Amino acid sequence: MTDIVFPDRQVVHDAPSRIVLIVLDGLGGLPHPSTGLTELEAARTPNLDGLAARSSLGMLLPVSEGITAGSGPGHLSLFGYDPIHFNIGRGVLSALGVGVDIRPGDVAARLNFATFDEAGRVSDRRAGRPSDEEARRVVAKVMEELEQPDGVEVRLVPEKEHRVVLLVRGEGLGAELTETDPLETGVEPHPLEALSQGSEVTARLLRRVLSDVRDILADEGVCNGFLARGFAAYEPYPTLNERFGLRGTAIAKYPMYRGVARLVGMTVDRIPDSVEGTVDALEALWGENQDLYFLHFKDTDTHGHDGNFDGKVAAIETVDALVPRITALEPDVIIVTGDHSTPTLYREHSWHRVPTLLHSPWARPTAEAFGERSCLGGDLGRIHGTELIPLALAHAGRLVKFGA
Amino acid sequence: MTDIVFPDRQVVHDAPSRIVLIVLDGLGGLPHPSTGLTELEAARTPNLDGLAARSSLGMLLPVSEGITAGSGPGHLSLFGYDPIHFNIGRGVLSALGVGVDIRPGDVAARLNFATFDEAGRVSDRRAGRPSDEEARRVVAKVMEELEQPDGVEVRLVPEKEHRVVLLVRGEGLGAELTETDPLETGVEPHPLEALSQGSEVTARLLRRVLSDVRDILADEGVCNGFLARGFAAYEPYPTLNERFGLRGTAIAKYPMYRGVARLVGMTVDRIPDSVEGTVDALEALWGENQDLYFLHFKDTDTHGHDGNFDGKVAAIETVDALVPRITALEPDVIIVTGDHSTPTLYREHSWHRVPTLLHSPWARPTAEAFGERSCLGGDLGRIHGTELIPLALAHAGRLVKFGA
Repeated sequence: MTDIVFPDRQVVHDAPSRIVLIVLDGLGGLPHPSTGLTELEAARTPNLDGLAARSSLGMLLPVSEGITAGSGPGHLSLFGYDPIHFNIGRGVLSALGVGVDIRPGDVAARLNFATFDEAGRVSDRRAGRPSDEEARRVVAKVMEELEQPDGVEVRLVPEKEHRVVLLVRGEGLGAELTETDPLETGVEPHPLEALSQGSEVTARLLRRVLSDVRDILADEGVCNGFLARGFAAYEPYPTLNERFGLRGTAIAKYPMYRGVARLVGMTVDRIPDSVEGTVDALEALWGENQDLYFLHFKDTDTHGHDGNFDGKVAAIETVDALVPRITALEPDVIIVTGDHSTPTLYREHSWHRVPTLLHSPWARPTAEAFGERSCLGGDLGRIHGTELIPLALAHAGRLVKFGA
Repeated sequence: MTDIVFPDRQVVHDAPSRIVLIVLDGLGGLPHPSTGLTELEAARTPNLDGLAARSSLGMLLPVSEGITAGSGPGHLSLFGYDPIHFNIGRGVLSALGVGVDIRPGDVAARLNFATFDEAGRVSDRRAGRPSDEEARRVVAKVMEELEQPDGVEVRLVPEKEHRVVLLVRGEGLGAELTETDPLETGVEPHPLEALSQGSEVTARLLRRVLSDVRDILADEGVCNGFLARGFAAYEPYPTLNERFGLRGTAIAKYPMYRGVARLVGMTVDRIPDSVEGTVDALEALWGENQDLYFLHFKDTDTHGHDGNFDGKVAAIETVDALVPRITALEPDVIIVTGDHSTPTLYREHSWHRVPTLLHSPWARPTAEAFGERSCLGGDLGRIHGTELIPLALAHAGRLVKFGA
């Protein structure tokens, strides 16, 4: 547990300073065999390099050594919430992401449309990745025909392609439930079972719902059932404002990242439709009374998953080109980091530390470039993700001295 | 909580070895815009550089990332006491600093002489910084005329200029009290209120005392009342000897630092009157049976607060010139560090890590100079303040092996 403990009650105070937190999703990489350079080292980033030369550098650990962070834990860590302590299920994250009005006590899960054969075996775990439109049509059909259990409200909300959010609202629900996804095809789904007595009523209820859904979708050829994952009960977190005196706003294209941001009390009013649009939104919001601006850039991670080295390099360069517009706003603190590494050679999230830059007038610069190796020797050193917010607060003049 | 836990009960044993802990107050700095060098990097320090070449180097964190340490927490950390766990109030620190005989259960506070106008508003929060002599005169007047509350002893002891220590002794006292300093002029002081039921009697009693003092000083033009801060009850700490088998002695000119040293059980018999006098005292004490010699040098911090880059550089060079006299004594371990950073560009204590050198025959040297950037890559790496004493004990041959 590395959650932040401020040593004094009144260590955080209001100050008219602005912090910009730029997250390049999956930023960290591994060296290309033919050049020995990582994606970030290979990218031409004159603006990030210039910023690095006026920044404290370090290598950030989102969770703990060897642990690969998902997007939720990775971002929670950057927001100053220890992701092991503040462990929220995928279901709640998804619900927050699609903007469902989720309330304390609600249980949420991620449902994936799947194709079942006549014997009830899973033949496609993602139902051929239906279009968003097709998914919306089938979800609407389910919602129309599904008989609501007594005293409980069951809601399905399409997320993207095969991904659907399940929200259950009622008294005395529990989320200690097993997942039904068998993680392979040609077999039946796992049974949905309670892992604790407090979740048994919920398990029974959801078994009936999943069974009813199969009946309702019996005439559908492809999207004819669901696999359920990531059950979670929603308990709201203390907000960024409560913990750190920060009013935050998120500028993120994808629902998941807005969901994590909303979870910690950020506003998420602007949804950019492009990489450039992210900075348009920042400029538009700059006049408003916010302390922390969280900018999310997704493409680095996507190319990492695709194993597309040059694509990830290009995605970094695209963000680099936007840096002058951000520095022109003269934030008090600029942080550039990632929520985890997604090395293109690895094609998945990884446990490697993430190169991180913190710019303010009080930085201790050590290098002229932004990259894994230049960050290794930096003044921030090897920091935990949750140490970033206290450092940002300090550099922004928002912490009072501890003791005389 | 990073307090030290030794893995074995008998891990500390007596050994005829001596450790010198040299603290340059506020040592850490930030690079000067025109040279890119910090105060320590800019200073000509042939002796410290020579020592660094035979030392393990590192960057020390007094409290936690982003947290700016006051002098009390900063020194406690260096002495091996986690300052968040061992959180002592300013009042107790001040009382220890002026050498008051403070006992368990006593409540202490820092009083500042202030000037009140006829309407009872604060017109000068420090009463024009009276001379020590003037402060002593007014305190004596108060002590002579103040009627002691029943069963309670109230004592005022002048500290320096406007600073006075309040000591309250009696049964069932509490220190959970609000401060009266409004932190601005032209307004009335805040009321002194209890934050818990156990402190209500004390609150009532001290409100009466502060009111009586105003009556007694009604004819004084300048020092005509007090503002009260930093209430704290005194609970003695386990000593350095109890925790680490170390008999320590402090050589410090200023009361505050002797106070923290006394708090952890150091003797504080020698009070040097100059920078050179600090080493005179060390030489005089060297024959005595001590294990840890704590030398405090204040000027680096003072110049940092004044924003005097060259002054801080010169203060470092002055200490550097004394190093040969210290090494000539052949201590088993020499540590040079600071209790926090006070960058001249920042003009205040800051949260930045502190360059640190640990010299012994068992060091792993990595650089030929003592500075922020040379320490970044050192063998000690990024250590927490409380890790220094275990390292010193190890280098001094005072720790037995853990396990076979």
